[in-house]
Amino acid sequence: MKASQEAIMARIRRLSTAHALGPIHRALLGHDGSMTKLLELILCTTVQLKTIRQSVVPCPYRPARALRIQTGEPANERDILIVDRCDGRPLLYARSYAPLSRLRPSFKDDLMRADIPIGRIVQKHRMETRREMLNVRYLGRNARLCSLLEHPGPYLSRAYNIISDEKPLITITEYFPTALFTENTSGSS
Amino acid sequence: MKASQEAIMARIRRLSTAHALGPIHRALLGHDGSMTKLLELILCTTVQLKTIRQSVVPCPYRPARALRIQTGEPANERDILIVDRCDGRPLLYARSYAPLSRLRPSFKDDLMRADIPIGRIVQKHRMETRREMLNVRYLGRNARLCSLLEHPGPYLSRAYNIISDEKPLITITEYFPTALFTENTSGSS
Repeated sequence: MKASQEAIMARIRRLSTAHALGPIHRALLGHDGSMTKLLELILCTTVQLKTIRQSVVPCPYRPARALRIQTGEPANERDILIVDRCDGRPLLYARSYAPLSRLRPSFKDDLMRADIPIGRIVQKHRMETRREMLNVRYLGRNARLCSLLEHPGPYLSRAYNIISDEKPLITITEYFPTALFTENTSGSS
Repeated sequence: MKASQEAIMARIRRLSTAHALGPIHRALLGHDGSMTKLLELILCTTVQLKTIRQSVVPCPYRPARALRIQTGEPANERDILIVDRCDGRPLLYARSYAPLSRLRPSFKDDLMRADIPIGRIVQKHRMETRREMLNVRYLGRNARLCSLLEHPGPYLSRAYNIISDEKPLITITEYFPTALFTENTSGSS
């Protein structure tokens, strides 16, 4: 599952050529900062998080592997939408898993009880972290994403870990409609 | 000198309106990840660092304030250009100051002896950090930038700290020509 950061960059270049992606698509796919902040900058708006589902679950195989924990270890599973605060349109859907054993109490409270994007939680707690890209993908039609994002696709997806104290604190997979970030149709001021 | 991250975002929105900046300009100005990585993603290229000057100096007043050290404390001053590896064109000029007292030996070697962009040094050493924006600016004509960047301007500039172990490890001011990142003229694949 783990790929080198160079391999991810090469994969983004290949996806870019194959699907005529623009600079903004590549930036969203491959950058290593806060996704919330980048969305707000690109669209010149503020965004809001809507929690679809949040519960403690036995961690499934794939996220457990990404987190380097045992399958079945208790993890916080969070399904969220990032929406534009102005018009409410969905911009991004994400599912994340965070092992309970690695969450400090105040961070855990924000993650489990409040509608706060992860980038803002990290900023609020002045946490020092690094982001490790795991995968990037291009997806065609998908009924669930179509319903959640109110857009027929195609979609771009990225998976990454946020590392703190040398261990993955959370593993996140994000999906967004390619067309939302086509230069001609959005985000110029 | 220190501004809240919300104030920086508001300032970027004002600059965007005043100077008809696009989504890529705002992303470059305000993101909190590696600038090297974002440049490579946007331009779909690889970049290279060229050191213009690098020496240990008594830290001047303004960077000392940003770093929260005494003026005159020994700091590594580095003037660099980021250039496109394919055609050699200059993309970005940066000046940084790093207090010697805060540099771990291996990081110091990379910073002082090698042509490695700071984002790559941070990645290579798997460092956990956070970036704190200090200022963003729009600049018109400037003879020094024109000569360094081989472009008459205008330019965008951002200043930020990279924080490690709760202290600023390095303070960086970057400058790039606005026109390099105008959607119609660069970076589509």
